Amino acid sequence: VNAVIVTIGEEILIGQIVDTNSAWIANQLNLLGIRVKKIISISDSADEIKSTVYKAINDFDLILITGGLGPTNDDITKQALCELYDTELYTHVETLEHIRKIFAKRNLPLTYLNAKQAEVPSNSEVLFNPNGTAPGMLFNRNGKLLIAMPGVPFEMKAIMEIHVLPRLASQSGGFTIVHKTVHTFGLPESFLAERIAEWENNLPSDIGLAYLPSPLSIRLRLSSSGINRDLIEQKIQNQINGLLKIIPQNIFGYDDDSMVSVVADLFLKTQSKLALAESCTGGTIAHLITQLPGSSNFFIGGIVAYSNSIKTNLLGVDPNSIELFGAVSREVVEQMANGARLKFNADFAIATSGIAGPSGGSPEKPVGTVWIAVSSAQKTVSERFVFGHDRERNILRSSITALNMLRQLIIYGEKNVKNEEFFS
Amino acid sequence: VNAVIVTIGEEILIGQIVDTNSAWIANQLNLLGIRVKKIISISDSADEIKSTVYKAINDFDLILITGGLGPTNDDITKQALCELYDTELYTHVETLEHIRKIFAKRNLPLTYLNAKQAEVPSNSEVLFNPNGTAPGMLFNRNGKLLIAMPGVPFEMKAIMEIHVLPRLASQSGGFTIVHKTVHTFGLPESFLAERIAEWENNLPSDIGLAYLPSPLSIRLRLSSSGINRDLIEQKIQNQINGLLKIIPQNIFGYDDDSMVSVVADLFLKTQSKLALAESCTGGTIAHLITQLPGSSNFFIGGIVAYSNSIKTNLLGVDPNSIELFGAVSREVVEQMANGARLKFNADFAIATSGIAGPSGGSPEKPVGTVWIAVSSAQKTVSERFVFGHDRERNILRSSITALNMLRQLIIYGEKNVKNEEFFS
Repeated sequence: VNAVIVTIGEEILIGQIVDTNSAWIANQLNLLGIRVKKIISISDSADEIKSTVYKAINDFDLILITGGLGPTNDDITKQALCELYDTELYTHVETLEHIRKIFAKRNLPLTYLNAKQAEVPSNSEVLFNPNGTAPGMLFNRNGKLLIAMPGVPFEMKAIMEIHVLPRLASQSGGFTIVHKTVHTFGLPESFLAERIAEWENNLPSDIGLAYLPSPLSIRLRLSSSGINRDLIEQKIQNQINGLLKIIPQNIFGYDDDSMVSVVADLFLKTQSKLALAESCTGGTIAHLITQLPGSSNFFIGGIVAYSNSIKTNLLGVDPNSIELFGAVSREVVEQMANGARLKFNADFAIATSGIAGPSGGSPEKPVGTVWIAVSSAQKTVSERFVFGHDRERNILRSSITALNMLRQLIIYGEKNVKNEEFFS
Repeated sequence: VNAVIVTIGEEILIGQIVDTNSAWIANQLNLLGIRVKKIISISDSADEIKSTVYKAINDFDLILITGGLGPTNDDITKQALCELYDTELYTHVETLEHIRKIFAKRNLPLTYLNAKQAEVPSNSEVLFNPNGTAPGMLFNRNGKLLIAMPGVPFEMKAIMEIHVLPRLASQSGGFTIVHKTVHTFGLPESFLAERIAEWENNLPSDIGLAYLPSPLSIRLRLSSSGINRDLIEQKIQNQINGLLKIIPQNIFGYDDDSMVSVVADLFLKTQSKLALAESCTGGTIAHLITQLPGSSNFFIGGIVAYSNSIKTNLLGVDPNSIELFGAVSREVVEQMANGARLKFNADFAIATSGIAGPSGGSPEKPVGTVWIAVSSAQKTVSERFVFGHDRERNILRSSITALNMLRQLIIYGEKNVKNEEFFS
């Protein structure tokens, strides 16, 4: 099955919003062995919708459309679908009732625009939208499936999960694509490529390899396809076992793992507790950790010590150390880490202090200079990094690097991987 | 000028990464009056690249390609461009020298794969990439401009800003599109639409209006085009002045403003200082604030009080209040706010305490229940919200709502807008 995703909306074409829907849909389809061959974004003009969707129905078996169904969209998309499928709009009573209930629950009168959202093309199957007023619509003609959904991500996802994905799964006939992604940290792309060149050259021809670089890690995606999922998974796992022998310390996780989820798992496994003392990362490490459900089981809390007085008053940093070495120094960041660990009665602590930029640098400590310390009752490890000039990148890099140092302190008891290599 | 953006890479089609490049490019082109009519994502197969780019050259005046140029891409994109433009690859000496320098600076040997990135089609103009090893390439034939760039966002952006945008600006002949975006908070889309219906109906026909909803705010984008930029801007501003009379308290900012940047501006203007006591938002408010350059001028620091002991020990919350009312209560959140304000010697403070989910709810306090307090020396305002079941959304909604309450406390001295309406 070859699929295409069409997103409708001027806001994507003028760059006001980023299309996150397509990535989510593509990922879901992929797991069912459905290949998304193309993603197309167009404006919500009737002509453009008709010509693009007409061609899509011609070229692909499965057409997924998002957007163009909001209460203020003037039904352009629905009218275009009516023309393509030679039909007319009618009011879908159950949907109207659903919309009525939503408004009654909010103690609000039903507006004309919202009531109109219950109108659908007469030969479509209505896909109930539990999270909003615009229903999904499914057209099935000549073995081609077209599904139109609202563009609001959590409405689209609900319709996909309740209606679309179960239906597609039952049609996939057992054919499946297996992807396994290996997350590495500490080696730039070309170095990783050379380090694992021999392994890569010896990969069986039915396993595909893709490099997925990001500013924070390089991911390696191994893919293979067939009918027997267990067998394919085993074949891929054998190759990953080989990779683990070559770059054991650079591999920190797999698939949906992230640096923070891997660290969280270590804490939950060892039943230890974490505290933070963040200066230049300004709450970002806490933010990343507390995004995870269940993080309250190991994360006690943290201090965002943006001013020096907080560093001394709340974290017990010696004012003389700040005077002598500056707030961005090994001495201060180690005292911050140990101060936080003791103050919060935690097993481990992270501290960061640096110049995130864009201003505030000096010849000895240019913008991007960051000291990071991780500490346990047994050991304090600290390291200096010089990142770049972009504030948001510096904050995120510092945060992920700090989590990696903590990961290594927990696993190896000391730092073993040269983090600098990645960022030099 | 009609433009198309083509992104090349399997990782977008399988949903492993979100295409943020296209939104950025579209936004930049739009400011030059260049309309992006289509955004297309395809895989890095030679056939797909050739057929899509061939059609793009036929249908559009300007073709922008990102991706498919990494050191591990096997030159598929460059070979396809060679075939389309009937030419061959050669080694661009200046680029090779640039790559050499990057590696020398890192004290690393030059790899074969990286050296190959200096190869470009012989009839293309090479666009220097200061942030990476893969150069951009420009083809100009029959008045059609095709530009291929690497997919790494900060490399693409550098090439666009240095080479592409200045060139396009000089060709635009003064024609320009003006967009002005109004950010509103506190009214759901259909309510906003009804509230401003009369204003909307009276808009001049040469001003376009678009609703851009998001979970956190509804943006209204007014657009118009022509030659005289000042005149267009004035025409749009007149309409916004009318809108301001209808929903004064719901409008919190314009264009690139965000809730956090608006609050930051208020602090800088009034030279006041901010402290935070975050429980359920877990550092997210601190993270949002410290992303802003210059936030150290008003943000002193915060405490992420994830455990109750931190609330009592560091923020001075009365343990009896936690015992009697629970950590998620008006009493506790107000004490947290005032505790943080006094502890950090700040003028204003925000405190949050809630059940972000997905677990931890009870019949009286279901998942999504959040208490937020904002406080100054003169006044403490607190309010209870019941958001949804999604942890990340609850955290973000709580954070933005808290910032909005703070904004209102600073501007109006008390809360005037019914936040609940938005989230009910």
